[in-house]
Amino acid sequence: MIETDHLQKLIQEGIDSLSFPAGLPGLYEPISYTLEAGGKRLRPLLVLAACKACGVNPEEALNQALGIEMFHNFTLLHDDVMDRAETRRGRPTVHIKWNTPTAILSGDTMLTLASELMSRCPDEKLPGLLRLFNRTAIEIYEGQQMDMDFERRSDVRVEEYMEMIRLKTGVLLGCAVSVGAIMAHASDQTVRALYEFGVNLGLAFQLRDDYLDTFGDPATFGKNVGGDILNDKKTWLLITSQSEAPDEISQWLGERSEEKIKGVTDIYRRLDLPARINRLIDEYTVAALDSLADAALPAQASEWFTSLTSGLTNRIS
Amino acid sequence: MIETDHLQKLIQEGIDSLSFPAGLPGLYEPISYTLEAGGKRLRPLLVLAACKACGVNPEEALNQALGIEMFHNFTLLHDDVMDRAETRRGRPTVHIKWNTPTAILSGDTMLTLASELMSRCPDEKLPGLLRLFNRTAIEIYEGQQMDMDFERRSDVRVEEYMEMIRLKTGVLLGCAVSVGAIMAHASDQTVRALYEFGVNLGLAFQLRDDYLDTFGDPATFGKNVGGDILNDKKTWLLITSQSEAPDEISQWLGERSEEKIKGVTDIYRRLDLPARINRLIDEYTVAALDSLADAALPAQASEWFTSLTSGLTNRIS
Repeated sequence: MIETDHLQKLIQEGIDSLSFPAGLPGLYEPISYTLEAGGKRLRPLLVLAACKACGVNPEEALNQALGIEMFHNFTLLHDDVMDRAETRRGRPTVHIKWNTPTAILSGDTMLTLASELMSRCPDEKLPGLLRLFNRTAIEIYEGQQMDMDFERRSDVRVEEYMEMIRLKTGVLLGCAVSVGAIMAHASDQTVRALYEFGVNLGLAFQLRDDYLDTFGDPATFGKNVGGDILNDKKTWLLITSQSEAPDEISQWLGERSEEKIKGVTDIYRRLDLPARINRLIDEYTVAALDSLADAALPAQASEWFTSLTSGLTNRIS
Repeated sequence: MIETDHLQKLIQEGIDSLSFPAGLPGLYEPISYTLEAGGKRLRPLLVLAACKACGVNPEEALNQALGIEMFHNFTLLHDDVMDRAETRRGRPTVHIKWNTPTAILSGDTMLTLASELMSRCPDEKLPGLLRLFNRTAIEIYEGQQMDMDFERRSDVRVEEYMEMIRLKTGVLLGCAVSVGAIMAHASDQTVRALYEFGVNLGLAFQLRDDYLDTFGDPATFGKNVGGDILNDKKTWLLITSQSEAPDEISQWLGERSEEKIKGVTDIYRRLDLPARINRLIDEYTVAALDSLADAALPAQASEWFTSLTSGLTNRIS
């Protein structure tokens, strides 16, 4: 039985037990600050759940779970500098609370710490884990580069967008479940199938993010609805509307007003984008569940992952 | 026989043979630009020479040599952002030629590529190599943090400075020679002794840097003599003079003029700092050569490292 509460407790205890040298607060306080911000802890949960699903005590994969979470938080920290984001999870970002050099150097340190945590495994697993981890990291940087390149383009195609979110979001979820399975000595087929499950889950997850930022319920959505529209963020919604109603949508770009949110949302509705993005989310969800079936996990474990998938792709916040 | 020219040719060919995906020039062109800038290629040379000195074909350690050089160039790239440096080796820095997000993301990519190159080794060597590489990386970040902290302090002690340059410069040279020895299946004693050799060489090397920036011959020194003085850079010279002639030196801090260079240099001379820093360089050189003797290399290999040490600690540029 995969017990979510138990796994989340393991993750929190693991994060709390990470200790850093006291002598250099300028380097290590921003790391603690970043890690303690919380968030969903989805990626380490996937590592531990996959390990347990493959029949091994999840604590065997705890260092790898913490390594993946450390890596994820490193990417958020550096992305916030690159995007000049001033807040994350309701608190000032590191480069605002401290400064840009601190954010860069603390992030670098987190990346090396992530690799170090990932490496705390039996020697025979190290080559495979490290290859997967490094390849995933490079793909994520490539996704971030594509995302930044998109900002200066008005001709981004939907396929390019899907490739960008596959790299920026999908592969890390794929890596997380694979790492858990590898730590549990799972077969190559199970590792590969769980990887595909994770990637497709990530695509559905990110499209749900795009949907919620515009069509979410302000009462339950954590951030301000309409933020993506205000910032001309190249989401599936904007890219699709730029392709199908270019003249209408271009009139709004560059503006920052409440009317813009309403105007752009109206265009999206007219193009039937809310229903269409939800169908796309469903397609990736089905693809994820097909891959999950290929992983041939025990029934109870499959049910847990199915339930998690449903929760994430129907989430309201 | 260690043939310097042959090793340098291997390094250059290795760097030239690194290829990056063509589809993302925004990410990979800054990496090629950074690597092709050249420099001394001291660290990869140390890797290959140590491998050869321990009786193994240096090509066996080429990926590790490239990994160390990739890592070193990553630290320069990110340090230049943190220090707002506008040129390096006579060319605009990456954050000037492109922008800060590009410099951050390309640097992150270089760090992961460095880890990946380092990992291209026989499986049984991977755990040891990776532990050394990750520990060294963390120490270098700690050294950079100390260096940044020193900028805002006027009470830095000489021992703190020596610890900072041990971390920021020494340990990577120690890591480089150790990695070469590990790839050549050298004994633990040789690996450890070469590590100490490299660290002490690094300290002598950095102190020589401090000396040259103020007392170098403008005709042969590559950079403008006096740059450290103009920028109030916390070198051994400034820190020692702040301890021994605090009132005189503090009158100049914050200024930027040719008179300042002359005034501060005069204070340094009056305190006999040129002779004293050269004695200190000699002490670390002797310590390096003592460690080299402990490594028990063949006579010809020892002579090569001795000659390299002498060249670096007496260099004029």
